[in-house]
Amino acid sequence: MVAEISKGLEDVFIKTTTLTNIDGIKGILRYRGYDINDLVEHGTYEEVIYLMIYGSLPTKEQLNTLKEKMKKHYNISSDLLNILAKLPKNADAIGMLEVAFSVLASGEVDYKWKPDADKEKAIELIAKSLSIVANIYRIKEGLPVKNAVIKESYAETFLNVCFDKPVPKEFVNVMDKALILYADHEVPASTTAALVVSSTLTDMASSIVAGLAALKGPLHGGAAEAAFKQFIDIGNVNNVDSWFNKHVLENKERLMGFGHRVYKTTDPRSKIFKRFSETFSKYNKEVDRYYQIASKLENLATNEFSHKGIFANTDFYSGIVYYGLGFAPYMPTPLFALSRVTGWLAHVMEYVEEQERIIRPRAIYVGIDRRDYVPIDKR
Amino acid sequence: MVAEISKGLEDVFIKTTTLTNIDGIKGILRYRGYDINDLVEHGTYEEVIYLMIYGSLPTKEQLNTLKEKMKKHYNISSDLLNILAKLPKNADAIGMLEVAFSVLASGEVDYKWKPDADKEKAIELIAKSLSIVANIYRIKEGLPVKNAVIKESYAETFLNVCFDKPVPKEFVNVMDKALILYADHEVPASTTAALVVSSTLTDMASSIVAGLAALKGPLHGGAAEAAFKQFIDIGNVNNVDSWFNKHVLENKERLMGFGHRVYKTTDPRSKIFKRFSETFSKYNKEVDRYYQIASKLENLATNEFSHKGIFANTDFYSGIVYYGLGFAPYMPTPLFALSRVTGWLAHVMEYVEEQERIIRPRAIYVGIDRRDYVPIDKR
Repeated sequence: MVAEISKGLEDVFIKTTTLTNIDGIKGILRYRGYDINDLVEHGTYEEVIYLMIYGSLPTKEQLNTLKEKMKKHYNISSDLLNILAKLPKNADAIGMLEVAFSVLASGEVDYKWKPDADKEKAIELIAKSLSIVANIYRIKEGLPVKNAVIKESYAETFLNVCFDKPVPKEFVNVMDKALILYADHEVPASTTAALVVSSTLTDMASSIVAGLAALKGPLHGGAAEAAFKQFIDIGNVNNVDSWFNKHVLENKERLMGFGHRVYKTTDPRSKIFKRFSETFSKYNKEVDRYYQIASKLENLATNEFSHKGIFANTDFYSGIVYYGLGFAPYMPTPLFALSRVTGWLAHVMEYVEEQERIIRPRAIYVGIDRRDYVPIDKR
Repeated sequence: MVAEISKGLEDVFIKTTTLTNIDGIKGILRYRGYDINDLVEHGTYEEVIYLMIYGSLPTKEQLNTLKEKMKKHYNISSDLLNILAKLPKNADAIGMLEVAFSVLASGEVDYKWKPDADKEKAIELIAKSLSIVANIYRIKEGLPVKNAVIKESYAETFLNVCFDKPVPKEFVNVMDKALILYADHEVPASTTAALVVSSTLTDMASSIVAGLAALKGPLHGGAAEAAFKQFIDIGNVNNVDSWFNKHVLENKERLMGFGHRVYKTTDPRSKIFKRFSETFSKYNKEVDRYYQIASKLENLATNEFSHKGIFANTDFYSGIVYYGLGFAPYMPTPLFALSRVTGWLAHVMEYVEEQERIIRPRAIYVGIDRRDYVPIDKR
């Protein structure tokens, strides 16, 4: 047998899962069997957290217990806040998130995996993400760090820490849905990195750190930010045709927010984010401008690329939605991370509990077979 | 075709490489074609750094240029030192390393990969690792952080930052060889994590962070520390038989520092570390005690397990060597990381430059196919 590289591990199955099922041909995404459209229409992020960690949607009592547990961890230590506040405000937001979860990881000495305790730890880390991401936003905006004032929902509490003003109910609702939409997506690079790390039985915060490190790359988490920056670059709906011709058709530049390793039709999450952009565009002129640019660009690109199975993915419209919520253009990736923490932790718990085996592939050596050491003055 | 899981990616080839070649049956390890025994006998860590990054052993002039470049980066910013000094001294040392490299990652905004600049960045990060690991040691020992006084070699400079006293030449020599021995080992979990991360084109410091996160796990980097703790637990060579019978034969506990996914004979690095332990045991009674325990334990375990292809690996004796150098028992993993930074960076540069493709495997969904959303008061 001649050994062959599995390029990008494209056709390799790294684990089984009961978490997320993607039908990339039909454009279907389900969390534990529930269609993403149903969860966004009827559910809340807290219900989805419960669903991913425990396997079923919660009863009222179970949901309340979860919310009470999370409330205890919405705030982070002043030591951690102080370390974050020492980072320069022009630091990379995902890099700052890596710092935050590394600090939590440094507090995990000899972590022992045990299913029940793991779930508690996951809930703690999901809750702490709220204050971590919100305060990184505040630091980057030049605002002082602050503790959370606990509101009714995760989404409301989060927006409340971010912004020093009351947040409209409609915004809380969209934030809640955005959290659901990014909560999990099977095993992309970030989840794979988290799995590799947890396969050595490292603590969960370190798995998050690895997920973040992968998300920092422009080919993964950076896509929503890059997609939104395209719209800023285009500037006006009248420029879409010429921009598309020059950058995409002539220069063959990559169109950000388009194409997906798994979906060969429109990403179902993209349709929902598009709807939210449209909603926001009705009462925000800037959002409307970006929405007009994005939908025209989507049409052009779909006409051009759909026969290759390349369609808008979840990152295409999400940046506009976050901008509509009041966030700066660098925030799509940190907001992606905020909810993906749930998916990362659900996957690493599933892996360690059921399929635990250290992840150790091989490389094929193609270099010089053997050479003798030559002393330095004879080289 | 029924899809099958590649458990632990055991038979999967994730990349080609010209870096490290392991023959697990014959017990041979070569860096770019040079036998590890030759490199340890004749080479220095700086030569190995050059070899891994540039592909060949350096001329005198090339070596001097490399050393001059590294000298510029042996020290880290006072901001980074201050952040590290804020962590509690009982924090996990690898977690502290994750913090340090995350801080460097947060300074990498929009890193663009380019072969020449990447090599410069790699040299910078390898040099900075020296002050980072040494100062984490100092913090954990309750010593004030300090800058490096540049000495002749990487090994000497490193030991000098760690210890507030002159270091014997023999110690510098063994430290240098230990750095060579841990510099690379193809694609274990930590390197795989670094590869997954860099495949999204994240910055190199983030790739190191992911490598560290994997190394933190007891099944990977923790092994040398755990092996050494076994010897402490055994306490005396007369207890080896009864300890082995009780823990390994009766309770079926895992013998740390034994067995390897790739080697089915004695790890060549193990033989070298054994020799260094023996050398140190001649002028340090404590080291001699641990060396006696370890070699008796190796004999018992080899008799018991060799027919299964389970032999001593590199982590079995390395903890004794580091202890002989004057380090506390928690230091094997940080010292592993110190030199493995070279291997991680060499592999991620090789991957990005030659085989760049985002690493995105699949999971096989085995959960509930489809269920309808049920309102919370009907659950």
